[in-house]
Amino acid sequence: MANFANETISAYDEPSLVEAKIMNKIRVTVWNEFRHEQLNEKVKQIYPNGIHNALAESLVSHGCQLRTATLDEPEHGLGEKVLDETDVLVWWGHMAHDEVEDEVVNRVHRHVLQGLGLVVLHSGHHSKIFRSLMGTTCSLRWREAGEKTRVWVVAPGHPIAAGLDHYFEIPQAEMYGEHFDIPVPDELVFVSWFQGGEVFRSGCCFYRGRGKIFYFQPGHETYPIYHQAEVQRVIANGVRWAQPSAGPGFLYGDGGALHASDSLESLG
Amino acid sequence: MANFANETISAYDEPSLVEAKIMNKIRVTVWNEFRHEQLNEKVKQIYPNGIHNALAESLVSHGCQLRTATLDEPEHGLGEKVLDETDVLVWWGHMAHDEVEDEVVNRVHRHVLQGLGLVVLHSGHHSKIFRSLMGTTCSLRWREAGEKTRVWVVAPGHPIAAGLDHYFEIPQAEMYGEHFDIPVPDELVFVSWFQGGEVFRSGCCFYRGRGKIFYFQPGHETYPIYHQAEVQRVIANGVRWAQPSAGPGFLYGDGGALHASDSLESLG
Amino acid sequence: MANFANETISAYDEPSLVEAKIMNKIRVTVWNEFRHEQLNEKVKQIYPNGIHNALAESLVSHGCQLRTATLDEPEHGLGEKVLDETDVLVWWGHMAHDEVEDEVVNRVHRHVLQGLGLVVLHSGHHSKIFRSLMGTTCSLRWREAGEKTRVWVVAPGHPIAAGLDHYFEIPQAEMYGEHFDIPVPDELVFVSWFQGGEVFRSGCCFYRGRGKIFYFQPGHETYPIYHQAEVQRVIANGVRWAQPSAGPGFLYGDGGALHASDSLESLG
Amino acid sequence: MANFANETISAYDEPSLVEAKIMNKIRVTVWNEFRHEQLNEKVKQIYPNGIHNALAESLVSHGCQLRTATLDEPEHGLGEKVLDETDVLVWWGHMAHDEVEDEVVNRVHRHVLQGLGLVVLHSGHHSKIFRSLMGTTCSLRWREAGEKTRVWVVAPGHPIAAGLDHYFEIPQAEMYGEHFDIPVPDELVFVSWFQGGEVFRSGCCFYRGRGKIFYFQPGHETYPIYHQAEVQRVIANGVRWAQPSAGPGFLYGDGGALHASDSLESLG
Repeated sequence: MANFANETISAYDEPSLVEAKIMNKIRVTVWNEFRHEQLNEKVKQIYPNGIHNALAESLVSHGCQLRTATLDEPEHGLGEKVLDETDVLVWWGHMAHDEVEDEVVNRVHRHVLQGLGLVVLHSGHHSKIFRSLMGTTCSLRWREAGEKTRVWVVAPGHPIAAGLDHYFEIPQAEMYGEHFDIPVPDELVFVSWFQGGEVFRSGCCFYRGRGKIFYFQPGHETYPIYHQAEVQRVIANGVRWAQPSAGPGFLYGDGGALHASDSLESLG
Repeated sequence: MANFANETISAYDEPSLVEAKIMNKIRVTVWNEFRHEQLNEKVKQIYPNGIHNALAESLVSHGCQLRTATLDEPEHGLGEKVLDETDVLVWWGHMAHDEVEDEVVNRVHRHVLQGLGLVVLHSGHHSKIFRSLMGTTCSLRWREAGEKTRVWVVAPGHPIAAGLDHYFEIPQAEMYGEHFDIPVPDELVFVSWFQGGEVFRSGCCFYRGRGKIFYFQPGHETYPIYHQAEVQRVIANGVRWAQPSAGPGFLYGDGGALHASDSLESLG
Repeated sequence: MANFANETISAYDEPSLVEAKIMNKIRVTVWNEFRHEQLNEKVKQIYPNGIHNALAESLVSHGCQLRTATLDEPEHGLGEKVLDETDVLVWWGHMAHDEVEDEVVNRVHRHVLQGLGLVVLHSGHHSKIFRSLMGTTCSLRWREAGEKTRVWVVAPGHPIAAGLDHYFEIPQAEMYGEHFDIPVPDELVFVSWFQGGEVFRSGCCFYRGRGKIFYFQPGHETYPIYHQAEVQRVIANGVRWAQPSAGPGFLYGDGGALHASDSLESLG
Repeated sequence: MANFANETISAYDEPSLVEAKIMNKIRVTVWNEFRHEQLNEKVKQIYPNGIHNALAESLVSHGCQLRTATLDEPEHGLGEKVLDETDVLVWWGHMAHDEVEDEVVNRVHRHVLQGLGLVVLHSGHHSKIFRSLMGTTCSLRWREAGEKTRVWVVAPGHPIAAGLDHYFEIPQAEMYGEHFDIPVPDELVFVSWFQGGEVFRSGCCFYRGRGKIFYFQPGHETYPIYHQAEVQRVIANGVRWAQPSAGPGFLYGDGGALHASDSLESLG
């Protein structure tokens, strides 16, 4: 029988989306540079299997189909085939942004413009991929003092705020404060309060090409923030929001313009 | 098994949403003033059961759960209970905007701020409910000359563009041209070209309170536009986009401010 | 000699703008309900000549040409002629919003759509004119506890942030917290931190019709906030930003649509 | 006497702005790759002194203080000192985008984030500097068939629409059509109609860092578009809108984040 979910499977869809849609699952790849967890005992205790696996377990429990990828794999685990089979890429990096190969960054960039969803977490604000998509420094003020933060919803009708109350608190967090040097978010979902006196636009949506990008500030390797239910919920919501929408195909896969030599109307 | 769709059913949800979600159906009420179809033979031929039923049939085929309401019913068919049981209200009106009672307009307005989705079609731009939510005249230039229009997608990653090509054409349409006196849309999905020389922001998304509003220009009582597949698809997409998101509850149901007398942090 | 300022005086201008432009002055009317200052000794001490005169003095020192108007004057001091001769209207009201006549509200509303700038201060969020232009409740959480607030610039390139540092503090303020039930601001300039744990979108720009609206949160009758230099600077910047721009005339002065019966291009 | 213009000269200002402000002039540098005019007889006839000088003459008549720079000069005429002394850079390039040195692109990029205004014209959509600031391909559909275009104002209150009627026509233009692969404009001022059936978001404003960017579609080397009064007016308006605003200084000149080690409030 026709139903709304199945209806979205059609000739318009990326072929690779069809099977997952039948299963009603979003195909997520969580990328982690996976260094802190191997170098720092404290981080290892909080995320014994790495931040990527903590995020993956949570997303599986929210109904996603998961795989992970890390910096030290060949092609950082982000080969063409992996990206072809990914609806949404979740990105966590911090100390090794510079080690990400430009070729991989360019590949991810191209896939985002073609429809790949991208969820960038916390210190990923300085990743090559986020900066190249934003066109700005993506810098900010920061302080690591274990202070309290309170994440306020400023867009209560936005799907990324689903299942939340008006705010939630994180007892110990790294402070990220304004000015956050990003383009004006296309949709601003969260604004955070920090105990030390700063504010931050902490949940930001961007449309780029045919893709959707969600930046979410909470999270740090030395705090158990990714074990917190509200944070997991927001990341799952962000994944769902960022999934490809099966709109018109991206026309500029090689970057070039398109010569529409024949006019649609007579120029007579 | 856990799946992403079921996951959205939780204690956070409006109770009235739970059953429909289990059925995976959005509860839509299509409202029509239903006058042209009774007064004008040409319109009756195109929409023999009224525009509301044409829209309803299409939305059912897209998996929604439907009811309709019309101007001449008591309370225009939009009593408190109907609105409580509606996720998204689709609005079509034209010649009788002034006959819609202010009490009903205020009721719908309140429900939108509390989360009801609203899809406003074509001549509904001048409805009381749309104007009261926008705060502007919502006026525009118009011409009824049966000219061609071409609806261009300017946001290919937006879910309302799902299943579309880069543009679609409507062979005969009423022209609506700029300046369209609305607030800047929060998301602009479509821009239309008209044969007579005008352009129009024809697919516009707005967040208001906890609700979401989608305005879509195509459609007119004397053209079979609501029988066109692309138009039906866009309206179904708009309904899906506008459905309530289960974010934090609306705090200001009576319009008044909220006295947060106790601070969250010590002011010592 | 040609210069950029004089160049803006042209046939396109509202005639009433020409003289002021020659003087390089913006014509501002400050409106105040002017009740607290007459009823409350504490307020009278802070604003002995009324909030309107404090604001007016500051704006004169920033180069504006000023007049004031208050609730108890005939037509609240906002007759047609006054509005015709005003570039930007600054609005302060709090305890007597309901006493403002709908006829005057409608008149100001019409003038804003036709190009009048509007700067709404603090408790003016609940004024009839602001609510009617926004289409939402404009409600918020509030607390009057004399706590500290810190106003952060989130749009450092915006002209309303001219002359400011990255933030400024107000030692004692009334708290206004999210969720602030307004439409998404077209430009968000400031976000405020409050000692008690809240955040607030405290500097918000809106385009409506041909007019521009700036809402600015700081200010309260029992604190000397309008004597603070940064606050005065922001209000002067807001006035300058909101002044009419001499763009195309407003087409819908009576609210009705415009019949563009002749097409610009042949429909042959 | 105090006046509003002089008031903007203060300790907050970039020192380099002060003198120009006293003169009430915006310091504009027009950059042109200046190749078509030397290679193509037709172009030379239309712009005998180069497009840069045509633009410069127009901007001088609108009260700006002008200099020009071209591709074949050392550092493409865009050394550090030139940029330091420039408020707004106007960019025209087409056939030689790839010849612009990355070092110069990076320098201009840094200056834009620090406050330099940038006005990008027509084929400059594919310039390195625009693409790097946007983060997308900035591609589009195009056709060179000398068709008519009609530029519609969709933001009548925006200062870039000053002095215009509701639309203006260009009798012969190159077609640029959607989808235009740019980020959602922060302010959309113009939408163009093309005779051949396309539409285009032809006047787009972006905030990036502390800088402002205006993209304007009209103009082509083989048509006398930059001699048309409305086009000149829009470019002058765009320059004025994009000029630095003297807001808080840019914090991330080297791209790095800022360690705010001391909290503003006690973390007790």
